[in-house]
Amino acid sequence: MREVFQQELREVQDRLVEISALVADAIESATKAFNESDVALAETVIEADAKIDAASVALDELAIQILARQQPVARDLRIVVIALRVSASLERMGDMATHIAQLARYRFPDKVVPKSLRSTFAEMGRFDVEIARMLTELLRSEDLAIAEKIRDTDDEIDALHLSVFDKMLGETWKGGSEETVDATLASRYHERFADHAVSIAKKVSYLATGDWTPQDS
Amino acid sequence: MREVFQQELREVQDRLVEISALVADAIESATKAFNESDVALAETVIEADAKIDAASVALDELAIQILARQQPVARDLRIVVIALRVSASLERMGDMATHIAQLARYRFPDKVVPKSLRSTFAEMGRFDVEIARMLTELLRSEDLAIAEKIRDTDDEIDALHLSVFDKMLGETWKGGSEETVDATLASRYHERFADHAVSIAKKVSYLATGDWTPQDS
Repeated sequence: MREVFQQELREVQDRLVEISALVADAIESATKAFNESDVALAETVIEADAKIDAASVALDELAIQILARQQPVARDLRIVVIALRVSASLERMGDMATHIAQLARYRFPDKVVPKSLRSTFAEMGRFDVEIARMLTELLRSEDLAIAEKIRDTDDEIDALHLSVFDKMLGETWKGGSEETVDATLASRYHERFADHAVSIAKKVSYLATGDWTPQDS
Repeated sequence: MREVFQQELREVQDRLVEISALVADAIESATKAFNESDVALAETVIEADAKIDAASVALDELAIQILARQQPVARDLRIVVIALRVSASLERMGDMATHIAQLARYRFPDKVVPKSLRSTFAEMGRFDVEIARMLTELLRSEDLAIAEKIRDTDDEIDALHLSVFDKMLGETWKGGSEETVDATLASRYHERFADHAVSIAKKVSYLATGDWTPQDS
């Protein structure tokens, strides 16, 4: 029974890695579509999100079946519960990529962001892609040094997020309402994407260190 | 054992109702603080969020303990798993209330939104409070007619959300960047708050009808 359980846990892990890889592809295409106003690429991101959603639902079902069949306790139980949470966060990361792609599509053939913010969004996008690739590697290897790097990259993204607001509220901002609305939403989506990655990295660290939550008994 | 389990499930349900009531109070105060620029009230919302977070973590621990001790299967197992998800969504609803309160605090003593959008945000706020109160009642009574009403109210909020964007992108909009950024974020927070309520209502409906997910076996 124990061996079957270990095998099923590996299956859960493999599937999380797969979904995370899909999310990394999605954010890579989404930021490219956003920065280059590539509406065809934006469409592929929007369509591919259904695959991430379905993979996440299928993983949840697998996790529930494992709980029912194997009735794990202690650390094993927490691994399965955490997998359910990681799955939910990955699904939301896919949604953020989709929202970024949708912004590119809405404004086409116009560019989504004015020139003065393009390099900032290009950088945020690069960091989001980097964070997604690191997350995939973290889920695969459980190397906690990567969790640390994810947190550092999130700090960079937070700083860029604040700089977008500074620019829009500064005196040199020439954007109209449309540019301001789009940049506000896009910046928020990029920042939330990274937040979810940090939240997953924390959960993987909990598993490795046993330091679950303040209320842990 | 079965009786103990039923008792523990009631404890889970009672706690979800309690957290939902805290969230309803939070959004009521947050929208009041937002619409009246009441910075003291905004502070109380921001401080009270720690209570919602702690209650959510404590509920998660209880759910994990029930899984370990009772090893539920079939419908019982799904109830516990769904409780974990509902808890996560309630926690996010608390965050949205906090974000709305923070907007009021940042701009004080200025008003957050210009006159032309005040009645729209007042209405969105009222609907969010209504949806939170209905959610508390749904979790208490499991009356699925309430789930239906939550979806209808969410439609109203979505329409108001779109009308905020229409107004900001229209020719009569006189708001500067600051007003545009704030209204974009505030509208998004109000809309996400309601989305989480709809997602919880769906889960409660699943439990009642047994119609889980497409992959359900």
